[in-house]
This record gives sequence, C-alpha cells and structure tokens, in this order.
Amino acid sequence: MQKVAVALIHHPVVDKNGQTMTAAVTALDLHDIARAARTFGLGAFYVVTPLQDQQILVRQIIDHWVTGYGSHYNPDRQAALALIRLKPSLAAVIDDLAQAQGRRPRTVVTSARLAQGDLSYAQVRALASDGRPLLLLFGTAWGLAPEVLTEADYRLAPIQGVGDYNHLAVRSAVSIILDRISGEREER
Amino acid sequence: MQKVAVALIHHPVVDKNGQTMTAAVTALDLHDIARAARTFGLGAFYVVTPLQDQQILVRQIIDHWVTGYGSHYNPDRQAALALIRLKPSLAAVIDDLAQAQGRRPRTVVTSARLAQGDLSYAQVRALASDGRPLLLLFGTAWGLAPEVLTEADYRLAPIQGVGDYNHLAVRSAVSIILDRISGEREER
Repeated sequence: MQKVAVALIHHPVVDKNGQTMTAAVTALDLHDIARAARTFGLGAFYVVTPLQDQQILVRQIIDHWVTGYGSHYNPDRQAALALIRLKPSLAAVIDDLAQAQGRRPRTVVTSARLAQGDLSYAQVRALASDGRPLLLLFGTAWGLAPEVLTEADYRLAPIQGVGDYNHLAVRSAVSIILDRISGEREER
Repeated sequence: MQKVAVALIHHPVVDKNGQTMTAAVTALDLHDIARAARTFGLGAFYVVTPLQDQQILVRQIIDHWVTGYGSHYNPDRQAALALIRLKPSLAAVIDDLAQAQGRRPRTVVTSARLAQGDLSYAQVRALASDGRPLLLLFGTAWGLAPEVLTEADYRLAPIQGVGDYNHLAVRSAVSIILDRISGEREER
C-alpha cells in the first residue's frame, strides 16, 4: 500500500443541509487516521485545510508528536504522525504526489451514499496494487462537496452495514476502508 | 448481529508498562463505537468504568444525545448513543446480558498481540450468527488486563496490517473488527 495515500478534506465539504462549508480540524482525526495509515503501510496521509489558524493547529500537533516531547513519550505515535502532510487544497495534494511519484495519482472519492458506477472494494484493491499512485479522498462534516465527487477519477461503494443507518465517524470509515483494500482479511 | 454486544473496558486495563490501571473515558470513543455498533446492527454497547465521576460523565453524554438537546439536533447520533449501557464492571455486563437474553453470553477478548489458540475472523463470524449471545471485549489504554484475557471464553486474532506496527486506536479496532465479523465485505 506504499503507493496509496489518504487525504482528509476539510474544504470543500457539505453541512447537514448540503451547503458547502469549511470544517474545523479534529485532533483525534489526525491521530486515528495516521495510526490506521501506518498500520496498513500507506505512503502518506494528507490533511487539507485552507484556513491559516487550522494549519497552525495541525502544525503544532505534528511538531509535538514528531519532533517534540510526544516523540519521546510515545514513539509509536511519532511513527504514525510522521506520515501527515499538511496542504491548503486538494490541488496541492495532487501536485505534491505527482512530484514525489513522478506521475499524477488517480483519485478515488468515498461517500456514505451509493451511486451508479461505484467501484467495488475488489476493484479498488486492484488499483491499489498495480504500482501506480492512488489517492483516497475522505470528507469531514457531512461529506465531500459535489464538485469533488464529480471531478474524481473513481468513486468507491459505501460501507453499508446491516440496515439503512450509515453514519460512521470518518475515523471509522477510513479504518474499515483501508482494511478492506489491504485485503488482509482475505487470508483469515 | 443483534445477539452481539461490545464492551469497552476502562478497568482493569494496563498502562504502557503493563501495570493494571483505570483509564479515563474518552467522549469520542462513545460516539464512534456507538455509531459503528449501530451501523453493524449490534444489540448493545457497554461502557465499563468503576469510577463514579466517570460514570456521571458518561451519563451526561448519553442524556444530552439520547433525550436532551442533541437528540433533536442530530437524531442519527441519538439512534447510535441509545445503544450505550453503563456498567461498573465486566461481571455486571455479563449479568445484564444473561438476564436480557436468558443465557450467559460467550466472551471474546481482543488484543493487539497474537497468542496461541486465537480464533480467526471466520470462526468468530460463525459464533456471532449461531443465535446465542456473544460479547466482544475491548480494552482502552494499552489493552485489557491479563486476568480479563485469561478468563474469557475465546480470544480473537489481532488486526495485523502490513508490517509490525499495530497501534490502532480502539475506535478503529472496533470498527474494523465489527466490519470483519459482519462479513459484509465477503459479498463485494
């Protein structure tokens, strides 16, 4: 999964009424998603926010755990949070990956709602292991804004659970999706 | 998964040096695990702490989201947090389930470390669907205390990821394990 990266988008996302908004950064998102990304061997975890005060907050969290006091207190957390890259926009994430990997990543959006043409987990697992860079996009708040969904190369089928309730925390959704894509469970 | 319950244990758990301790309750654990439990159709989510001040905190969170202001603001969160049952000990959880279901639940402990005799996910999936109550135990802090591990009926194999890093947040571990046990991915 070294060629796979995750981006957690704080703008543009939608609120509960479907209006485009900018979400605040949740510190625990950074920890939980970094730990999941490290567990499943991802290349990077991008945190995307255009807000300067939020960028300062993210930077402080990274500094504390990667080079500051937290790095000695908990080296396991250091290993996870070292995967975080802070960017102001999705375009900047794609540029960064294109520069680092020598080719533009394919983008896969995630959503709690089913749509026509959604890829199965087996299909995304195949994309994740073909040697080319792949970027998985997750939205905070009530999910990615429509323009992000339509501009992406692919869209992944939602986690459905057993009923019609599909309100997982983004932290949970990232964890489950990385587990499904890594395919570890296939062997057990 | 209606016969399956999850218990999040705050005592007895171990600290980073393996000493038995009591962990503080993290509000986001309650939200994330309740939402995952609701998504996968579990019967109940037990929060276990012997500390009175922590019990008051848990009660306040439940009240806010299940009957208070939060229940109107976000009914989806209400549907999830209504699954929470607060208990002072694991013994009280087992008694409660035995009374509600008419028979003692089988207990399955989870751990980040592999041990001899660990059940596979397919094996626990079979236990979860045989019609008898099943209780999955998760530890906060650095995991369940040794006596909880040894007294359980079964132990589930850890989530391994791709390397030797296995420091998922308990919120992530619960999400992945419920997804694996529900078997939704089998069909995709």
